[in-house]
Amino acid sequence: MIMRKTLNRPVELSPFPTWLQRYREIRRQTLKLVETLGPDDQMVQSMPDASPSKWHLAHTTWFFEEFILAQHFHGYARFDERFSFLFNSYYKRLGKHPHRSIRGTFSRPTLDQVRLYRVYVDDAMEELLLREASAEILRLVELGLNHEQQHQELIVTDIKHAFWSNPLRPSYQPERIRVVASATAAPPLKWYCFDEGIYQIGDDDTSHFAFDNELPRHPTYLSPFRIASRLVTNEEYLEFMADDGYARPELWLSDGWDHVCEHQWTAPLYWEQMDDGWSQYTCGGTVPLDPSEPVCHVSFYEADAFARWAGARLPTESEWEAAARSSRCSTIFANLFENENYHPTPAVHSKSQQQSMQQMLGDVWEWTSSPYSAYPGYRPPAGAEGEYNGKFMCNQLVLRGGSCVTPRSHIRESYRNFFLPQKRWQFSGIRLANDSNDRTA
Amino acid sequence: MIMRKTLNRPVELSPFPTWLQRYREIRRQTLKLVETLGPDDQMVQSMPDASPSKWHLAHTTWFFEEFILAQHFHGYARFDERFSFLFNSYYKRLGKHPHRSIRGTFSRPTLDQVRLYRVYVDDAMEELLLREASAEILRLVELGLNHEQQHQELIVTDIKHAFWSNPLRPSYQPERIRVVASATAAPPLKWYCFDEGIYQIGDDDTSHFAFDNELPRHPTYLSPFRIASRLVTNEEYLEFMADDGYARPELWLSDGWDHVCEHQWTAPLYWEQMDDGWSQYTCGGTVPLDPSEPVCHVSFYEADAFARWAGARLPTESEWEAAARSSRCSTIFANLFENENYHPTPAVHSKSQQQSMQQMLGDVWEWTSSPYSAYPGYRPPAGAEGEYNGKFMCNQLVLRGGSCVTPRSHIRESYRNFFLPQKRWQFSGIRLANDSNDRTA
Amino acid sequence: MIMRKTLNRPVELSPFPTWLQRYREIRRQTLKLVETLGPDDQMVQSMPDASPSKWHLAHTTWFFEEFILAQHFHGYARFDERFSFLFNSYYKRLGKHPHRSIRGTFSRPTLDQVRLYRVYVDDAMEELLLREASAEILRLVELGLNHEQQHQELIVTDIKHAFWSNPLRPSYQPERIRVVASATAAPPLKWYCFDEGIYQIGDDDTSHFAFDNELPRHPTYLSPFRIASRLVTNEEYLEFMADDGYARPELWLSDGWDHVCEHQWTAPLYWEQMDDGWSQYTCGGTVPLDPSEPVCHVSFYEADAFARWAGARLPTESEWEAAARSSRCSTIFANLFENENYHPTPAVHSKSQQQSMQQMLGDVWEWTSSPYSAYPGYRPPAGAEGEYNGKFMCNQLVLRGGSCVTPRSHIRESYRNFFLPQKRWQFSGIRLANDSNDRTA
Amino acid sequence: MIMRKTLNRPVELSPFPTWLQRYREIRRQTLKLVETLGPDDQMVQSMPDASPSKWHLAHTTWFFEEFILAQHFHGYARFDERFSFLFNSYYKRLGKHPHRSIRGTFSRPTLDQVRLYRVYVDDAMEELLLREASAEILRLVELGLNHEQQHQELIVTDIKHAFWSNPLRPSYQPERIRVVASATAAPPLKWYCFDEGIYQIGDDDTSHFAFDNELPRHPTYLSPFRIASRLVTNEEYLEFMADDGYARPELWLSDGWDHVCEHQWTAPLYWEQMDDGWSQYTCGGTVPLDPSEPVCHVSFYEADAFARWAGARLPTESEWEAAARSSRCSTIFANLFENENYHPTPAVHSKSQQQSMQQMLGDVWEWTSSPYSAYPGYRPPAGAEGEYNGKFMCNQLVLRGGSCVTPRSHIRESYRNFFLPQKRWQFSGIRLANDSNDRTA
Repeated sequence: MIMRKTLNRPVELSPFPTWLQRYREIRRQTLKLVETLGPDDQMVQSMPDASPSKWHLAHTTWFFEEFILAQHFHGYARFDERFSFLFNSYYKRLGKHPHRSIRGTFSRPTLDQVRLYRVYVDDAMEELLLREASAEILRLVELGLNHEQQHQELIVTDIKHAFWSNPLRPSYQPERIRVVASATAAPPLKWYCFDEGIYQIGDDDTSHFAFDNELPRHPTYLSPFRIASRLVTNEEYLEFMADDGYARPELWLSDGWDHVCEHQWTAPLYWEQMDDGWSQYTCGGTVPLDPSEPVCHVSFYEADAFARWAGARLPTESEWEAAARSSRCSTIFANLFENENYHPTPAVHSKSQQQSMQQMLGDVWEWTSSPYSAYPGYRPPAGAEGEYNGKFMCNQLVLRGGSCVTPRSHIRESYRNFFLPQKRWQFSGIRLANDSNDRTA
Repeated sequence: MIMRKTLNRPVELSPFPTWLQRYREIRRQTLKLVETLGPDDQMVQSMPDASPSKWHLAHTTWFFEEFILAQHFHGYARFDERFSFLFNSYYKRLGKHPHRSIRGTFSRPTLDQVRLYRVYVDDAMEELLLREASAEILRLVELGLNHEQQHQELIVTDIKHAFWSNPLRPSYQPERIRVVASATAAPPLKWYCFDEGIYQIGDDDTSHFAFDNELPRHPTYLSPFRIASRLVTNEEYLEFMADDGYARPELWLSDGWDHVCEHQWTAPLYWEQMDDGWSQYTCGGTVPLDPSEPVCHVSFYEADAFARWAGARLPTESEWEAAARSSRCSTIFANLFENENYHPTPAVHSKSQQQSMQQMLGDVWEWTSSPYSAYPGYRPPAGAEGEYNGKFMCNQLVLRGGSCVTPRSHIRESYRNFFLPQKRWQFSGIRLANDSNDRTA
Repeated sequence: MIMRKTLNRPVELSPFPTWLQRYREIRRQTLKLVETLGPDDQMVQSMPDASPSKWHLAHTTWFFEEFILAQHFHGYARFDERFSFLFNSYYKRLGKHPHRSIRGTFSRPTLDQVRLYRVYVDDAMEELLLREASAEILRLVELGLNHEQQHQELIVTDIKHAFWSNPLRPSYQPERIRVVASATAAPPLKWYCFDEGIYQIGDDDTSHFAFDNELPRHPTYLSPFRIASRLVTNEEYLEFMADDGYARPELWLSDGWDHVCEHQWTAPLYWEQMDDGWSQYTCGGTVPLDPSEPVCHVSFYEADAFARWAGARLPTESEWEAAARSSRCSTIFANLFENENYHPTPAVHSKSQQQSMQQMLGDVWEWTSSPYSAYPGYRPPAGAEGEYNGKFMCNQLVLRGGSCVTPRSHIRESYRNFFLPQKRWQFSGIRLANDSNDRTA
Repeated sequence: MIMRKTLNRPVELSPFPTWLQRYREIRRQTLKLVETLGPDDQMVQSMPDASPSKWHLAHTTWFFEEFILAQHFHGYARFDERFSFLFNSYYKRLGKHPHRSIRGTFSRPTLDQVRLYRVYVDDAMEELLLREASAEILRLVELGLNHEQQHQELIVTDIKHAFWSNPLRPSYQPERIRVVASATAAPPLKWYCFDEGIYQIGDDDTSHFAFDNELPRHPTYLSPFRIASRLVTNEEYLEFMADDGYARPELWLSDGWDHVCEHQWTAPLYWEQMDDGWSQYTCGGTVPLDPSEPVCHVSFYEADAFARWAGARLPTESEWEAAARSSRCSTIFANLFENENYHPTPAVHSKSQQQSMQQMLGDVWEWTSSPYSAYPGYRPPAGAEGEYNGKFMCNQLVLRGGSCVTPRSHIRESYRNFFLPQKRWQFSGIRLANDSNDRTA
């Protein structure tokens, strides 16, 4: 672990570019997320799907080191050669990598060493960027920052699961005392209708970053459909449960029913039945369930079964995107990462906001009925970058819209998230759709 | 088990309807398939995916009893009340059913009793049909016959797997001595190109039967694509293997690669490396691999990896269907169940046939890149019938075109088969497609 | 499969040796066991521990072919060379063998062929025995016959499990209608006390056959102990259950408790709670539980927990053997295979029989607290024969005394059976012991 | 977490008892073991068998709190009520406990809090002991200290496994540079012979502590046997490997062979084949294998197979104990915990030491052929204490003699350790025995 001397230069004198500021802000934001986590906390891997916070800190740094510094910084000496293997998540073209299930054994490097690793790489990145901010490098920086933002979201979802797995149920945001939002019910659900026809799907705006899987933009034929004005609430989900939703196989996909039986699911993840009703574990600890909040931490199977029970269905991802574009969703009022709620919030009653669809961005990722596949004409990028998204296009379902832990600058209408249908540790919820173009039903 | 006396009537005197003949022929065809199988053979369940032949004989009969006789034949007494549960495969709305993995324990009823069960139900079916062939009943008969045809295919795929699992490797068709087809290579692969635009996908011909999942017919927008004139051959697949196809993760989907590693796959199912080259186990025993035959018994993961290696991709199911309709595929020259090959055959060199796409129907089911989902506007039928197809619309991939063990009257351009991506005991193979509309590549 | 002509000779004219009669009787007895089983029944393997009846028919024959004919009959041609591999159970020194879990796929050879195989081998065995009955050959014949008797027991236990696994629950002995034995309770339990000292353990009688694991006879020091006069009854076991026996971890070994929790055991195998009380599935079908019968089909874990609950313990195998020898147990009144009950029977009230320990031989195998280990000075025989018993001396517990399906000539005081502690598909039950020499407790 | 004020008293003024010094020393020793481990290190649980160091620190403290303070210190307030559940390992009579596999999620309490917990409990213990050192309390203190010593050993074995699981393979004792011990081979193996007769087995010395499972002392009859003068060396084990030891089923117990095949074992745990020969991972990092050292980290299966290959067998635990008593083994020259090698060392060549058996105490735990069972007349203590040893008397094998990480005051001739036959992360090795009383063989 030899520190490169050459990295120490007076970068502050240079004119300070916006994107360098963005680099710093996003990198700093990651550290802010772990401010209250000690070295013990940052070691926990509570299930193979989740990773220790420390690993997230290191892996996001590794991304910049491997994809940018090692390729584009002439003479760059890695902080530690062994990290090249150790913090590789799954990029086969960058050599072997540890099995993801053993990340919880990486006590070395220590948290302090990982923090030094971050400083070392940030230093080198700044030097590189001030010296040679080529288009290709800036493109990769943007990719690395978006990658880091994805891991910011995962830091929260994973530490939430880690803390919940500890029988003591510590709180990640102990200062945030949640209050059940008054007795106000959610505003009534309305339907927004869309005509059949050809819609352009996929990102088209070269002014911002988009992942390869959002491209190419392409025409899609949609039959007439309608989509709900807001997310499904806890109250509505409790009705499904009260109507024996988890015990009626006719409501479920076959694989979903098998999963429910095997794992004896009777409620969303993090819910717990207390003597005086349902509670849920949140980043701020265990609190009574607020009926007007969007239901959260449900799997695709549960979302699909709920929709069937409700006489509706989930939207396809194309329908969702068409609806989102039409309503000119904005992140301005959305409940996103920067709000620091780390928990979904109820739809509002204000007249102006009820004019358009609510909660499309933020709050919870919305399960669609669309399996995650390549768009027509999709080509993964060359090299290891091609492994980022393309190789997962099987067995997963698309979720749209971001959640309460998605950074504001990270989400857009064309954004495609994807998870296995049985997973529910992400902030995932339900918006209904339907075929009928009957505006009254 | 009391035989109903009233069933014995001189049905032969009535004018003999075509559909009754069809009922008899298809039911008889099933029995023909098990002619050479003894009661021992018909008990084998070599893996949970497969079922014993005897179970297939009984379950197809159960289908007529439960969906038609029990509902529509006034006063019908079941052959054995307990079969209602015993031979239910997965219809939750018809009550409980045994777990599929224990079908191999059903030594009782004996094979003879199951044969009697078939006679009893056939007798009752004929009586009902001659008395009251309502449209609804005829619709259900057609469904039952198509159901029986699906199980005819499964009888062959399952007994092939059962016999292969026996270390003695007995032969299902010992009389069929396979000869490697001469030294003739397959005809060169050509590409057929299709313009972008709106294509109508799904069945539209009310003159024949179609499953609910082929409906409704709907417009789909396709980008320009091209599709291969014939199936991928063993020879081509051997090149993929020789080029380390099974050892290069960059060729595989992530889940596929994990599967390959865990199961140590190095060749398609039923292939075996002998001292003098590759052999394959067929319904006629183990024979040397014929290079010009279509590759068979590959999973979706292998089909997808091969296509990537070949610089191509798999077709979507819409592309496949559009191509099939355009080429006016016919079952006339197709290698289907009635040919009694139970094995795919090479593409031919005759000029006339080389004018159009070959092997679209029959030979092998062709993996598409399309996850099995509902068509826009799809509604599963009411009642237990709705469980036939709809509840499996998750985690599976669509295959098209039928195989060498699909009955001729059972296949059509709009037909959608579906299996999990790792399964390969069906007769499943590969047809390539591509985005480019360059006719020369 | 060429039948050897030379086997047909008029053996009846020769003076007929006793042991040939014994060979014939035991071989015939095996066939009698499967008289009512069709080819379907004989294919069922309901779990990896159990084997199809047909496999038992073939494997016992294989034993004579491989251990005797192939070694000692000059010029012997095997019935089918491939059976040498196919019907090898686990003898590594005789080459490879199929994994035991796939025995249910052996539809070929058919049952008829296996019967022919038996005739062929029996014929050759008779020829060999009449020609050259050397001491070594007779020793191996005796081993083979004892081996066959073990499989006779397994045929019953395995078909019982197979039929029970079939949801129709057919009956293996439909003609045996069980009646609950009157209201008579079992005779009161008495204790027999034994002084401390050196006891000779192991077989010492060279006039009869004994397995290698019963040897060598050796001195063992026993502390004073007492042992129960009869087996634990269903009534007593029901008290244990009523006292929450299956829900109190303090009664269980740690591994046993984990097993109970994982498999949700709440009663012995084959028990079922009906509206009007407990029933049990027997070889004669499902019948109400007879409280005075010995409890049967319990695991070691259950036997051990019951004993702890009862303030007692299980006997060691040495204690059991010392007690058995002292009481001069006889098979004369024992409920064994030849009684054709295939089910344990209650202890009796007759004065004479109450003078000594009852049910020591027959009824149920009695779990001891002794792990299955080698006796001091034990040496496994040379060659494949050495794999018969020795290689299983780990992880198993010893059971003593035989059961209602053990042949009369097969059981003796020194006989050591062994099974994993969680197994309970054998006819296994409980006899209590204790340290105290207080005759009144 | 309210600190009890009353604990602060001038204990130093009291006359200072020896056992208080012993309490302090052993407790301090535990902390010394983790001196070089950071909070990250102390979180790792690399497999369900192992526990994080921090958990060991807490659980040993919990033992004093639950078994002594909560029962015998009137008015004692627990440090944290929730720890009563959290740090319970498996004592069902003390209520529920977390599943052992999730100990790696206990990031809270933090390491600092666990250290405070230790101080708090030590403080209370000292107050109690100075005030009321009843015989019962002193007995429990002794139990708690022996318990703590067991966990000291586990801290080393578990951190060794944890560090080895980290691909970086950090070193627990980086300051200990191991040197391969010269070219000196181990001294030749001699046999010590023992006559048949009655031996007293079990602890008899009331002047020191012994676990319940070492009692009662009881007569055991032993046949004549001989036992090796030293442990099996790496060199000897390499010969076994070179002779295809891991590939010859006839050398293995049946369960052992299955395990070898399933886990593809070809060498002891922590061995790695390098270009220039075998290396092994030690607490001081990866070093070349020293041929003269005792083989270590082998399972019972491997020990048993090696012995069979060598024409010998493992000793029974009674034989081992009889031999140990006869040779008046001493811990004085033994390689134990306090030597701080944490690694076995070769037998020595000095004449005097070669007069008696070497390495009986320390170096490696020696697998015996004895399943772990109760001694005649054994009664587990009442209450939760009874769960310490008794409930594990099934499925495990006894090991004797302690290892290089067993504290000196913790080991004695009668000490019984036990592990499942497939486990090998403990410092476990092999001493040979044999039946023959031939002193020359």
